[in-house]
Amino acid sequence: MTDISNSTKDTKVAYLGPAGTYTQLAALRQFGDECIYVDCSSIDDVFAAVENNSTHYGVVPVENSTEGAINNTQDCLIDSNVTIVAEKVVSIEHNFLVRKNSDAANIDSIASHKQSLAQCRKWLSANYSGVKQVECASNAEAAKLAQSTQGVAAIAGEMAARIYDLEILDSKIQDQKNNSTRFLILASKNTETEPSGNDKTSLLLYTENKPGSLFRLLQPFEELQISLSKIETRPSKKEAWEYVFFIDFEGHVKDDNIAVLFERLYSSAVEIKVLGSYPSRRHSD
Amino acid sequence: MTDISNSTKDTKVAYLGPAGTYTQLAALRQFGDECIYVDCSSIDDVFAAVENNSTHYGVVPVENSTEGAINNTQDCLIDSNVTIVAEKVVSIEHNFLVRKNSDAANIDSIASHKQSLAQCRKWLSANYSGVKQVECASNAEAAKLAQSTQGVAAIAGEMAARIYDLEILDSKIQDQKNNSTRFLILASKNTETEPSGNDKTSLLLYTENKPGSLFRLLQPFEELQISLSKIETRPSKKEAWEYVFFIDFEGHVKDDNIAVLFERLYSSAVEIKVLGSYPSRRHSD
Repeated sequence: MTDISNSTKDTKVAYLGPAGTYTQLAALRQFGDECIYVDCSSIDDVFAAVENNSTHYGVVPVENSTEGAINNTQDCLIDSNVTIVAEKVVSIEHNFLVRKNSDAANIDSIASHKQSLAQCRKWLSANYSGVKQVECASNAEAAKLAQSTQGVAAIAGEMAARIYDLEILDSKIQDQKNNSTRFLILASKNTETEPSGNDKTSLLLYTENKPGSLFRLLQPFEELQISLSKIETRPSKKEAWEYVFFIDFEGHVKDDNIAVLFERLYSSAVEIKVLGSYPSRRHSD
Repeated sequence: MTDISNSTKDTKVAYLGPAGTYTQLAALRQFGDECIYVDCSSIDDVFAAVENNSTHYGVVPVENSTEGAINNTQDCLIDSNVTIVAEKVVSIEHNFLVRKNSDAANIDSIASHKQSLAQCRKWLSANYSGVKQVECASNAEAAKLAQSTQGVAAIAGEMAARIYDLEILDSKIQDQKNNSTRFLILASKNTETEPSGNDKTSLLLYTENKPGSLFRLLQPFEELQISLSKIETRPSKKEAWEYVFFIDFEGHVKDDNIAVLFERLYSSAVEIKVLGSYPSRRHSD
């Protein structure tokens, strides 16, 4: 069993880097300043670090309230063997960053992560219509690029502005003012958590590609009055146009009625993969 | 009423460009060589062209069999008022392209869209391990670059090879042989289509954010034995962590039982937006 709140200065935490990403912010809010943080250059690398036990935990983004699911994380959840032990919601406020003392009129390109560019689509078309957009692996990479290259501005968080010594020309430029990202805290396979009284369980379900199969999959939840908090589909990658369902529901795998749920689910699902049970968080803290 | 098969040399079709994209290929397969094609630089621009009647039709990608939904298109379907009048599935087959009469031994970089480079990862590491990869906004852009720059090869479709006068050094180089993209053909709001006998209807459904609401939404489909072919969720963009459902089902809005379906749906959905009824296509043609 793992008690995530008992992290010490020896606890190793992998996160989607480089330093200054919103993922690092989520990791710091979860584990505090004392841990050993390992920045990874991709979501796949965070999963690998947890899977091969080179770190105790991993932190990855899974969903943004405006832009939706992070496909790369979903695909890693399909392919990897890790356990979700917690979630963390962080408010995402984007800033328009330039090198200090540079001329805002001379910006010839704007760098950011693809999702951040999408989250600021209206602001960009109102203010920098036609200016070239450069997709970077992360917001922090974009900030780094803005620091090193003349004429490049970046869209990133306040922490990235501080780390890469950039000037904030405009703040809160995202289209939706209420813009948050949900992050997952991962631990190694089969890590057990204890019910907190307000938990969520994440499952992966493969069904037969037949009429009514999704309805039959949801029926046990309705019969047992178990509330679904989320359903997502992704291509199964086994056959073209076949899907796998990501389902989050309220409850913990150790709750009594969940055993009954699983029994009933097994009769309508081809395959079930439990991704983890963990305390539910809807708001940033 | 619109008969999409009656396109003439005056029919204007907007597509996600530049010339040589797979979207143009989908457009050509749908409308033939005779139409006036207008290339747009973004998916939003294709929707705008159809919405403000500057073209009769628009063509956009909506889903790839390996990579999943195209979020930008889904978000435009939420925000715009257009009608889906057809779908088209195109097999995505990548080719390795170089400037004619150039020396294959002198390739120092390989340009393509990020997704295409990923789709050819095994082929690239078997044949061009260590050669620099250049990410472009589209495969067509990559082909353009290969034509204009010595030593640059491109990964793109056959049409891009023709348009940019490149030589196909190798074909079908993608790792996954069964790789297709589904495209939507859009027309202006309230365009009517006639049942073909094998149709699909696309809906957008907003439900209350309450336990069991998705189940209640699916119940009428089960009761009437109407087969769902697809369900996707996207953030509603109204409230954080609220979702809108994209549902495709078998049938045409003019079918008798669909009127009953709609009556029942209205009792459990807050809002229903009909995106269109059109002939169903699962395979490329």
